[in-house]
This record gives sequence, structure tokens and C-alpha cells, in this order.
Amino acid sequence: MTETVPRPTLEAVAARAGVSRATVSRVVNGSDGVREPLAERVRRAVEELGYVPNQAARSLVTKRHDAIAVIVAEPETRVFADPFFARQLRGISKELTTHDNQLVLLLTEDRDDHVRVGHYLAGGHVDGALVFSLHIDDPLPELIQRAGLPTVFGGRPDWSGGRGGVVYVDSDNRGGARDAVRHLLGLGRSRIAHITGALDQTSAVDRLDGFRDVMVDADPRLVVEGDFTPAGGEWAMRELLDRCPDLDAVFAANDLTAAGALRVLREHGRRVPDDVAVVGFDDMLPIAEQTEPPLTTVRQDIEEMGRLMARLLLRDLDRTTAADENVGGTPSSVILPTTLIRRASA
Amino acid sequence: MTETVPRPTLEAVAARAGVSRATVSRVVNGSDGVREPLAERVRRAVEELGYVPNQAARSLVTKRHDAIAVIVAEPETRVFADPFFARQLRGISKELTTHDNQLVLLLTEDRDDHVRVGHYLAGGHVDGALVFSLHIDDPLPELIQRAGLPTVFGGRPDWSGGRGGVVYVDSDNRGGARDAVRHLLGLGRSRIAHITGALDQTSAVDRLDGFRDVMVDADPRLVVEGDFTPAGGEWAMRELLDRCPDLDAVFAANDLTAAGALRVLREHGRRVPDDVAVVGFDDMLPIAEQTEPPLTTVRQDIEEMGRLMARLLLRDLDRTTAADENVGGTPSSVILPTTLIRRASA
Repeated sequence: MTETVPRPTLEAVAARAGVSRATVSRVVNGSDGVREPLAERVRRAVEELGYVPNQAARSLVTKRHDAIAVIVAEPETRVFADPFFARQLRGISKELTTHDNQLVLLLTEDRDDHVRVGHYLAGGHVDGALVFSLHIDDPLPELIQRAGLPTVFGGRPDWSGGRGGVVYVDSDNRGGARDAVRHLLGLGRSRIAHITGALDQTSAVDRLDGFRDVMVDADPRLVVEGDFTPAGGEWAMRELLDRCPDLDAVFAANDLTAAGALRVLREHGRRVPDDVAVVGFDDMLPIAEQTEPPLTTVRQDIEEMGRLMARLLLRDLDRTTAADENVGGTPSSVILPTTLIRRASA
Repeated sequence: MTETVPRPTLEAVAARAGVSRATVSRVVNGSDGVREPLAERVRRAVEELGYVPNQAARSLVTKRHDAIAVIVAEPETRVFADPFFARQLRGISKELTTHDNQLVLLLTEDRDDHVRVGHYLAGGHVDGALVFSLHIDDPLPELIQRAGLPTVFGGRPDWSGGRGGVVYVDSDNRGGARDAVRHLLGLGRSRIAHITGALDQTSAVDRLDGFRDVMVDADPRLVVEGDFTPAGGEWAMRELLDRCPDLDAVFAANDLTAAGALRVLREHGRRVPDDVAVVGFDDMLPIAEQTEPPLTTVRQDIEEMGRLMARLLLRDLDRTTAADENVGGTPSSVILPTTLIRRASA
């Protein structure tokens, strides 16, 4: 399924037979409605490539369900309101579909529901789990561990050790934050504020650490906690203007936060970037290009993070279920680089 | 689970014991970390109410997974781009969570993936399915039927008979469309155009039928096919202005389409409602209030549709798995009324 396992895919059969994937599926699953010469071409391609169809023969051999659970540790309302999650799911969906695995998104109303999610994961319905937006003290990782499922996390989990073999995909949040703050210093700014993300998430903590790496002696009043939402950005910006009216720059923990901060700055008659320079994080399009003014920001490749999470998990599953053992070693975590994108706001 | 089956819920136990649902779950599932006097209170409430925890005892009795699949027959990119789906999922999620059932959202890239979805549904991973945004000729209903799963559809499926017992929740699309067009006639408009939705969906066909019910002798050039998206609305509006520059009103098949049409009317210097009156469908907030000018539209209660779909399905499952048989008859389809909401655009 991955480059290390040359197992033929549905796509390969479709390409060889010169038909659509749907047609291959119909033939392979014994449905009616495919004309005989076409069906014959598909059967020949299946034989030539040695393709093993999903549920029928294959799951008997591999004991797989060909289904991967995705859990976003946020209420479903936030999953649909914050484009970050749609972006990450897009990468996951593309990768899983390429490998003919079903994406099973487990939605919840709040953290209390994670016990029920743990039950589902333990019930033998999926082969592995992709988990993102974890919060510190969330019971989910323990529930997943108890379910015994291979798991890849999006974003570094907060435990530092003890549990072996934790695999995650993350961006260089700390390095990206340092770049943002150094850029503001380079513009001659000195009263640089930081609106953090939700500090029960490692991404927010890492970005704050990056800010502090550069602003070693920062006035503590220049740091206000946000929550990665535009409303949080508005609230925090009001608080900052109240506390430190002389501030000349803001590094916001993500673009949604920056968008909220920009609205409040405009409301208060502060010109951006002339009076106050603003840098965000994510490069969430089209938002980052549509703010007034367009946003200078730290780009992370969110879709690629999702794709990589799925790829690492599928590789792990191939490794543990492959008949031969030469599929490669244990997958390890990946930290993706970030890039500063300059627009008008700083 | 529903009002007809007084089976005690996790919530009831939590309320009785005066603790959170998470605490009840932990005690019931034998986790550590709950202080003894609290754990004792929970155990007493469980006993007094006769609460049967989920997976352990209960699924042995009922053979249930306490999980419901939701399939939106659209590419995942559209699921996240069109707020209609988030709204319907919100209703479903609330209802399923109240009954401690897991929402399992099966995402796909395109229609070819529906064969894989059919496999998952047939694999014994869920108790039932909620399916919406079906397109005519979609293989999904047949795949679900083959999987033998109780199913409730969102929106009337297109087959007129033959398959018994199809249950769906829909809005009165045809009646709502008639209201919209009659409202435009009442404003003295006579050259009324219609931008349809995607005509491979019954909701679009029904709204077009409602338009034709009132505009019996309409100039056929006044009907242009859209696809329920803002881009489709823009394209169709350009086409209409080109074909019939004398039009004085537009009924758009949904609010996103209307938003696109409004942009093109503004671009062409047509004043709304003075030159051209515009009515949408959905009352999708905040969009319908934020267009220029705010949109007169036909309101349907999308979240309630989702809630009802989930409720009908759970009731059906209770009926078929209940020990005693007096839980009520076969559920039947529900058609919800619509309401015309007047704002500035017509």
C-alpha cells in the first residue's frame, strides 16, 4: 500500500483495464450491471496484477477492516467552524482514499464523550486512529492506548516520556514563532505583544516558548492568553491595548486570532502596520489574504501534515500485518518546517 | 432511549449522583481516579435507576454497537464548504449524544468511494445509517439496502416506489418555492427568473416544480440550472442577464446561490430590490443576514431535520431490538413546513 509494499491497488487495476475504479469495484464484488467484455478485461487485470480485493480475501489474510478512525478532540461545532480541521482532514482523506481505506470521523459534543469514543475504538471497528487537537489532561490517549490501536497524533502530545513509541506529526511551532518575532524586531519594533493559543495545547505552549526565546526580558503584561478563535483574538487585543497602549507589534498564535486582533486595532484607530505590526501563524487561505491589511504569517503545511499522519499510520499497519517482515522499521515522528510569508501587515 | 422507552441514560445517573457524565463513565467502566465516596454515590445511582452501561452488558442484550453511520453523498471538500451540512450534522450529533450513541461520519472523495462505504456499512460496525444529499442514480441506497441496515434519509430519495419502508425527513420544498414566487408576484414582479439547484437532487427538482406551479406559462429562458453553490449562482445570474435583461426578480434555489446572484447583479449596476427582487431558500445564518442587501428567503429548520432523522432511526432500532414489543409502529417519513422570512432583498 505504501512505496515499500508493492501491493497492487484498485487504481492500478482500473488503469490496466482502462475502466473507472467504480467498474473494478463492481466486478470484484460480484455486482451486476457491467457488460461482459468490460468485466472480462477487469478480471484479466486483477489476475495479471495479483490484486486482492478488500473485504473478501484480503481482510481474512490481514485481519484488517480497511478503516481508520479520525478523532478531533474538539466539539463538532469547532471542527466545522475552524478551517484548520477541514484542511487537515483533506490531507488525511486524500491519502486514505488513495489506499482504499475508509475515513471514519468520530464526532463528539464534548470531552465527556471521549469515553464513548474509546469504546468504539476498542470495539474492533477500525485498524488504527489519527488523533489531533489534543488538550493536556485529555483522557483520550489513555483510552486509545487501552484499546490497543496503532495511533498517530497530529501535534506533539504533552507527555514527555513513559509511553514508548508515540508517533506524531507536527510543525516547528517554536522555530516558526522565533522567526515571526525576529521579523518584528527587524522592523524596528520593540514593544512586541503575544496573543497565545489555548495553553492546554502543546502547539500554543511551543509558540509561546518561541516568543520568549527571542523576547527574553519581555514585559509580562505583553502576553495575553487567547484560544485560537477570532473572538479570543478580539478579547485579548482589547486587553492588550488596555494594559499596554504603547505596544507597536503583535504576534498572534494563529491567523484566526490575528483576524480578530486586526478588527479591534481598526476599531481603536490604530493603523496596521504603521502603528502596530501584526504577524499570524498558519497561512490559512483565503483568510490570511483577505484580512485588512493582508496578513504576514508563519506558514505551516496543514494538508501535508494530515497526509503524512495517514501515511505513517498505514505504513505502521503494513509493517505489523505484512506476511514478510522486510517492510522497514518502526515509523518515527516528523516535524515539518515553517516559512514566514510576508504580506502587508508587518 | 426515546420517550417511548424509559431506559435510564448516563445523564440520568449523573444527575442523580450529582456528578459529571465523565465521572459516571469512569466508574461504570472501572477506571481509576474517582474518589471512593463519589464512586459509591455513582454505583448507588446506577443501581437505583437500573442503568445498564453501554458496551458491557447492554450490547450483549441488544446486539447493538451504539454507533450510527452518517453519510453525506458529497466529496468531503463540499461537506466542509457548505454550512448546510454542518447544520444538519449538529442536529444529528446532539440527538445521538443525548442517547449515548457514537456519530460515525464516513467521508469520501467522490462517488466511486461509495462502494467502500457500502463495505463498511455491511461490516457490522454500526447499527444504522443516516444518509443525506443523495443524487439521482447514486449507487449508495442499493449498497445500504444490501448491507441490511436500518436507514433514514435526509431529503426524499428519488425512487418513487418498489422499495418498501423508505423513511426520510424532508422540508416542504415545493410549497416553500410556491410561497417565494407568490411573494414576488405580490410585489408586482412579472419577469421572475429561477436559478435551480443541482437537478440530480430531489430538493432542486421539487423547488423547480413549485416555481412552475405558480409560473405556469413562464418563459423557459427564465430558468437556468445552478448547483447550490455561490459560484453556480454567479454563473447562472450572468447567463440570465444575458438572456433576459428585462427580468425583475430572481428566486434562487438556496441562499448560497442567491449570494452569488446578488454579487453579479451589483456588478451589473442592478439595484436590489428596486430593479431586481431576490429570494433565496434555507435562511442560512449568518449568510442570509450578511448579504448586500439582507436576503428574503424561505426558512427550513435544517438542524431540526438532522435531529429528527436521528430520532426516527433510534426509535426504529429500539422497536426492532426491544425485549417487549410495545414500542410503537414502524416510523414514517416527516415533511417539515417552511416559512418565508422577509428582509430587504424582496
